[in-house]
Amino acid sequence: MKIWQKNIDVDSFVESFTVGNDRVMDLQLAAADVLGSLAHTRMLNSINLMTDEDLTIVQQELKNIYQEISAGEFEIEDSVEDVHSQVEMLLTQRIGEAGKKIHSGRSRNDQVLVDLKLYFRTEIQNMVGNTQIFFQQLIKLSEQYKDILIPGYTHLQIAMPSSFGLWFGAYAESLVDDLELMKAAWKVCNKNPLGSAAGYGSSFPLNRTMTTNLLGFDDLNYNVVYAQMGRGKTERILAQAMSSIAATLAKFAMDVTLYINQNFGFISFPAHLTTGSSIMPHKKNPDVFELIRSRCNKIQALPNEIALMTTNLPSGYHRDLQLLKENLFPAFKSLNDCLEIATFMLEHISVKKDVLDDPKYDYLFSVEVVNNEVLKGVPFREAYKNIGIAIDAGEFQPSKEVNHTHEGSIGNLGNDQIQRMFKEVIAAFGFDKVENALSQLVKS
Amino acid sequence: MKIWQKNIDVDSFVESFTVGNDRVMDLQLAAADVLGSLAHTRMLNSINLMTDEDLTIVQQELKNIYQEISAGEFEIEDSVEDVHSQVEMLLTQRIGEAGKKIHSGRSRNDQVLVDLKLYFRTEIQNMVGNTQIFFQQLIKLSEQYKDILIPGYTHLQIAMPSSFGLWFGAYAESLVDDLELMKAAWKVCNKNPLGSAAGYGSSFPLNRTMTTNLLGFDDLNYNVVYAQMGRGKTERILAQAMSSIAATLAKFAMDVTLYINQNFGFISFPAHLTTGSSIMPHKKNPDVFELIRSRCNKIQALPNEIALMTTNLPSGYHRDLQLLKENLFPAFKSLNDCLEIATFMLEHISVKKDVLDDPKYDYLFSVEVVNNEVLKGVPFREAYKNIGIAIDAGEFQPSKEVNHTHEGSIGNLGNDQIQRMFKEVIAAFGFDKVENALSQLVKS
Amino acid sequence: MKIWQKNIDVDSFVESFTVGNDRVMDLQLAAADVLGSLAHTRMLNSINLMTDEDLTIVQQELKNIYQEISAGEFEIEDSVEDVHSQVEMLLTQRIGEAGKKIHSGRSRNDQVLVDLKLYFRTEIQNMVGNTQIFFQQLIKLSEQYKDILIPGYTHLQIAMPSSFGLWFGAYAESLVDDLELMKAAWKVCNKNPLGSAAGYGSSFPLNRTMTTNLLGFDDLNYNVVYAQMGRGKTERILAQAMSSIAATLAKFAMDVTLYINQNFGFISFPAHLTTGSSIMPHKKNPDVFELIRSRCNKIQALPNEIALMTTNLPSGYHRDLQLLKENLFPAFKSLNDCLEIATFMLEHISVKKDVLDDPKYDYLFSVEVVNNEVLKGVPFREAYKNIGIAIDAGEFQPSKEVNHTHEGSIGNLGNDQIQRMFKEVIAAFGFDKVENALSQLVKS
Amino acid sequence: MKIWQKNIDVDSFVESFTVGNDRVMDLQLAAADVLGSLAHTRMLNSINLMTDEDLTIVQQELKNIYQEISAGEFEIEDSVEDVHSQVEMLLTQRIGEAGKKIHSGRSRNDQVLVDLKLYFRTEIQNMVGNTQIFFQQLIKLSEQYKDILIPGYTHLQIAMPSSFGLWFGAYAESLVDDLELMKAAWKVCNKNPLGSAAGYGSSFPLNRTMTTNLLGFDDLNYNVVYAQMGRGKTERILAQAMSSIAATLAKFAMDVTLYINQNFGFISFPAHLTTGSSIMPHKKNPDVFELIRSRCNKIQALPNEIALMTTNLPSGYHRDLQLLKENLFPAFKSLNDCLEIATFMLEHISVKKDVLDDPKYDYLFSVEVVNNEVLKGVPFREAYKNIGIAIDAGEFQPSKEVNHTHEGSIGNLGNDQIQRMFKEVIAAFGFDKVENALSQLVKS
Repeated sequence: MKIWQKNIDVDSFVESFTVGNDRVMDLQLAAADVLGSLAHTRMLNSINLMTDEDLTIVQQELKNIYQEISAGEFEIEDSVEDVHSQVEMLLTQRIGEAGKKIHSGRSRNDQVLVDLKLYFRTEIQNMVGNTQIFFQQLIKLSEQYKDILIPGYTHLQIAMPSSFGLWFGAYAESLVDDLELMKAAWKVCNKNPLGSAAGYGSSFPLNRTMTTNLLGFDDLNYNVVYAQMGRGKTERILAQAMSSIAATLAKFAMDVTLYINQNFGFISFPAHLTTGSSIMPHKKNPDVFELIRSRCNKIQALPNEIALMTTNLPSGYHRDLQLLKENLFPAFKSLNDCLEIATFMLEHISVKKDVLDDPKYDYLFSVEVVNNEVLKGVPFREAYKNIGIAIDAGEFQPSKEVNHTHEGSIGNLGNDQIQRMFKEVIAAFGFDKVENALSQLVKS
Repeated sequence: MKIWQKNIDVDSFVESFTVGNDRVMDLQLAAADVLGSLAHTRMLNSINLMTDEDLTIVQQELKNIYQEISAGEFEIEDSVEDVHSQVEMLLTQRIGEAGKKIHSGRSRNDQVLVDLKLYFRTEIQNMVGNTQIFFQQLIKLSEQYKDILIPGYTHLQIAMPSSFGLWFGAYAESLVDDLELMKAAWKVCNKNPLGSAAGYGSSFPLNRTMTTNLLGFDDLNYNVVYAQMGRGKTERILAQAMSSIAATLAKFAMDVTLYINQNFGFISFPAHLTTGSSIMPHKKNPDVFELIRSRCNKIQALPNEIALMTTNLPSGYHRDLQLLKENLFPAFKSLNDCLEIATFMLEHISVKKDVLDDPKYDYLFSVEVVNNEVLKGVPFREAYKNIGIAIDAGEFQPSKEVNHTHEGSIGNLGNDQIQRMFKEVIAAFGFDKVENALSQLVKS
Repeated sequence: MKIWQKNIDVDSFVESFTVGNDRVMDLQLAAADVLGSLAHTRMLNSINLMTDEDLTIVQQELKNIYQEISAGEFEIEDSVEDVHSQVEMLLTQRIGEAGKKIHSGRSRNDQVLVDLKLYFRTEIQNMVGNTQIFFQQLIKLSEQYKDILIPGYTHLQIAMPSSFGLWFGAYAESLVDDLELMKAAWKVCNKNPLGSAAGYGSSFPLNRTMTTNLLGFDDLNYNVVYAQMGRGKTERILAQAMSSIAATLAKFAMDVTLYINQNFGFISFPAHLTTGSSIMPHKKNPDVFELIRSRCNKIQALPNEIALMTTNLPSGYHRDLQLLKENLFPAFKSLNDCLEIATFMLEHISVKKDVLDDPKYDYLFSVEVVNNEVLKGVPFREAYKNIGIAIDAGEFQPSKEVNHTHEGSIGNLGNDQIQRMFKEVIAAFGFDKVENALSQLVKS
Repeated sequence: MKIWQKNIDVDSFVESFTVGNDRVMDLQLAAADVLGSLAHTRMLNSINLMTDEDLTIVQQELKNIYQEISAGEFEIEDSVEDVHSQVEMLLTQRIGEAGKKIHSGRSRNDQVLVDLKLYFRTEIQNMVGNTQIFFQQLIKLSEQYKDILIPGYTHLQIAMPSSFGLWFGAYAESLVDDLELMKAAWKVCNKNPLGSAAGYGSSFPLNRTMTTNLLGFDDLNYNVVYAQMGRGKTERILAQAMSSIAATLAKFAMDVTLYINQNFGFISFPAHLTTGSSIMPHKKNPDVFELIRSRCNKIQALPNEIALMTTNLPSGYHRDLQLLKENLFPAFKSLNDCLEIATFMLEHISVKKDVLDDPKYDYLFSVEVVNNEVLKGVPFREAYKNIGIAIDAGEFQPSKEVNHTHEGSIGNLGNDQIQRMFKEVIAAFGFDKVENALSQLVKS
């Protein structure tokens, strides 16, 4: 029904247009919102904008609400616009006037900013955790099947011998570089915007360093105009980091759909993890990996979407930024789902052990044979010519054994080094410091 | 003319289609290509695949070519396909057979991979250098005009007092976070893919750790399949980092076009740095900033372009990857140009010192006045009500002085902290280590 | 909780991952699904794959379900995978075995294909309808305020006289070109894929021309491989058409946020349609237009998202395509909401009638004055020089009247021609033919 | 060297930054620029702003320059900023003062606008021409190999019998829908912006309908503000249309790289059209198709790039728009190259005639066999069960003959209908009308 038709409540149309899905999205910010208020009120007390008495009851009730959120017992009522209003309403219902004082020296703008940063930190830690489990599964498979050869392709043409050890290990190492971007996103998120008010600061003598420490942030977003400018930018950078993990997963899924295809036939999964047909018994549709690929390609589109929604906006807050939640928040769950289910699928993968017995792969070894001759002292050109003659004559009979010894090759995968690099990048996030600060903040 | 018409040389059409702009692009890889060969040949010698005599003359001639490249005397001849062939041809022309031996244990694939990583390192250092100069100019202006107030906008509506100090400083701090992404890109680039051959390693007993050290890399791309997989991915991550700096510049340019607009009128530039008309003397078209904005928005589109060109390609080399050069290489110059010219323009900016004298900005101070009453002990609601009454009665006369003292506010910009953060992020790149290794490699 | 933890039902995790939001999305396909089955079963009867008796009861019950859907009484049960299964289940529950026969000669693939095309047709018609109402509102305002001048900007610098007539009319004409793209999308959607089975056709002697006519399609997707290939492509083309309307709306919203800004102050809206503050009485935040801009920029990102999710997929169905629903379906509502609320807002817009009285706009008229002299016979250079001298001397006093008479100018807006073009493009869709066919199909 | 270092000519740096690649790009606009001036001057004469004498010599000299451009003898001198200045300079050098009068009643803005529209029309006609030749080659191959079966895949799993007839024909039909978008782009381009001046019209009594007719445009961009707003929008729409053809080509190229892969082995090309190795004689790298895929995916990124560069720009000209030339102009050549070389490659394709003899494809026919039983009167469930039992017992022996007769199936490809649709869409462009008008305009 059109809004200009009679009997339509215009205000509710406008309200529903402007609120959008905020109530649903905001539920995910609830814990962060309470954490921010716990820190903010302690700071207000320290600068004499909240009495000790008020502080005590406010802190206690915020911690109660925090427990309710953790227990899944928190919801945003239909009559309430967003999570911030819901928390304030609960507080005021339970402790009266003191509940309203938590907003001194704070604007809705910097409240949202700090909620987002706290929430993003949590989500980054979740994604890194799931990446780590997926990484370990890849390393495990790389080691388990390190001696099983498969063809390596260039231009999608059969080219050189490769192995399952290389294949699984490559995607493990890919995740190391992906986490470098995630670490950059973490560093951008791990700075405190609280105290920037509406983006132009406050005449109250706020102690922003204090809330920075209480919330376990590494540093401040100092300049208050920049603190506000971080909205949209933080989301874009985080989406870029997610898109890097997603690109790794999507490429892996593409390989899987190819390798499970009957013309390749390198791998398989149990029937209950694929879809098929009783009259097409060969059919093992890799739906899970097709959907991993599709979801991850969608995540790859996210940074551009955010860029399009924020480009050419002048400095200062714009309501446009609210909509970024709808893009980004569901992507956290989607990427985590993909990491979890990819790990699960890999626990059930079967690899074919005799792929290279097929004579169509014989030529894979021609470069090997030339190199081996060279190592024995035969000049390269002579060795090359000899093999060419043998191949032409149909007399090429490679041994199909490879003896690769250098770092990162079939016989020396370097998985220990890759694990070392992975540990180093994870350690640099410093999740412990954040966890300690927050557990301090919420303990009664 | 169509290729199926007579008198068309098909082979040259196909060649021109496949070579594309590679000769032009590859010129930028020349220095990197020689550096790679300097390291590779020393490694070949160490594993007895090149004699001491050959090594000596090869090293000397590569260093000569390196000097020619540095002097701008190197070019790729029309009859030569790419930079790698050109270097090899020069070498063979000058020192004979020994020149051909530099390709043992190396494929064109890993040669290109290492060239790109070396080249990207150089370009990252250039961009970081220009970012630093732009940063310093912003900090300088922020300090210089820290006491000059301007309106701060939310929803593009006049909202709160701001200042030129905040405005310039915000963009300076924005660059700090941008460099976090650039540092991630640097870390991804600063790993050695040499020795991965065609993406599946080699039966030669290569010493990849040795070339890693010689070329000043932090670490290896261990897994050879991953080393190859880095092509496209490295470019995308680097483009993402560039897009972050570009987004900061574009937003700044948007602000400039708004602030130089006569309805705002906060800033101006000398006539010779804008375009105008003698019969429209008010017109000061900010072409430079419009083009900065446009170029930077184009750079913001680059990561998505690379994603579209690489998504859903299975693992292993594909010729598709060659075309990424055409997207990325010109963007380095474009971003550097933007940083340089933005710095230059800011050396000539004039700011209007009495913007807030205009009574339309009086309401900016209403929140200030309320807060000041609160700090004097008046309950918030009472203070708020009083100001509302004064405004309604047309009696609101703000003092237009602001007394903001907290971290990052008008009276306490925090530029020293912002500079500290900038230094920390730059230091973490470790440019020195790379420079030392390379100067060691090319010294005669 | 992780899926590898005990007590997790793996199958339900996999199912929930693969089904995703399909149940929610599919509700929108329900009417289309029944329409497709109405046509398909009549065709099956015509080729003797369904008896007359079965046809009669199947048709009757499908029409009943169609009525339930229209009345909002249809839902997809939790235990049912998608809309197609739900319809079949209802049918079988109500009419027994005959209900199962509707799937002869049809695959789930072409059933989904035809459902999507039918659904997209409906959505296109909705969007075109809302575009038309918005268009008429713009034309109305253009006529209403055709004599009220405002400054025209180039480079965001005050440049030449413009008018509200031109401003509103420009966006009306923009919609004409947007509908050209929508018409292309309509043509792509208005071809029948039914009968392509799983993308490779069927050994049943289907009569695809018959279902084409019954469903009111203009033509067939003949080649069955192409019919399947249309999935993803159709969505991308439709998203491109939507992005064109969205770009027009977003640009208009950008203008609005600028013109309502106090430095411009050309337009305003009633207080209850903006958000403000009692102590900042000047503040009229244009939240609705900021959200229109943001939503429309998100829609502008949609074609790229679809491209990223479909690029480099070989021909043939892939499960990836299922996820496109989640991108596109909500965008229909979002674009319609934007068109409706923009129309509504424009019904309440106020324009400032004396903008050009402000002397800062005097120079707007300098070109006018030169041209008028030229028309009186003064050589251009002399006229130009005279005005320059007058301006320099501070003696320039323009009359601020404009006499533009050519097509599309201030005094001759050409709104009748613009309306003529709009009518022509709408007529070319041929909605009537489709409506007639469908009403024939569902009538009892 | 940095611009703030001494000895750097600042003005030349700024000029080179602002001019960019315009001289190179503008060469492609030369013919269009002269056409625009031919029409504009005749119109000026008709409204008494140019004398008959001046008109005669201006027309003659413009036609001379047009001939020089056609003969490839035109260039833009280094000292001249763009093509428009170059044409005017030539004119003035040759015919004196009269040459300067061609700019009356015209701004650089609408001159560029009409040049772009004329140029885009030419490029669209070129692309449509090359698409048509490629289409015919696909239809020819579809007919030639209509009886040769290949497997059809769903989920990249062997699924149903397909044929080369279907495969080639599918891509032919895809081009029909692509041209619907191109036709929309043509309609948007085929409207006259000349006379809109700087985007706000003119006080001269221009006759825009006259130039519309002279230049063969279908209609006017009436509203002058909209005429200017078309810049950027026209480019985006044209890029969207190009991206649709590009998506078809890229998908085809993906299929080719898969089908030429040795695990599929359905097609091949002569050795000189692929790249290989003498010791890997099996290797036939499909570089041409990999580069088609890559180039076309780059073109697919173009609409988004343009969107990012134009989004959130308020109405009115901005210098940002100049940079769009650099994105779009080279894409015309790139897409044409891809269409030409794809056609050429297809003239040399070989298809394998006995693909389905491999027993791994036997299950392809299981659905066929079930359907055939049903057509003979066996109830579906019984037929299905019987085949399942035969397959289980290893006794399934399909006849490998297909008898598909419906529209668009293996035995009834519908290529005549597809050709009919192609002709219809091409006819709707109306290229003749444009050609007639332009040849009238330039004839002496």
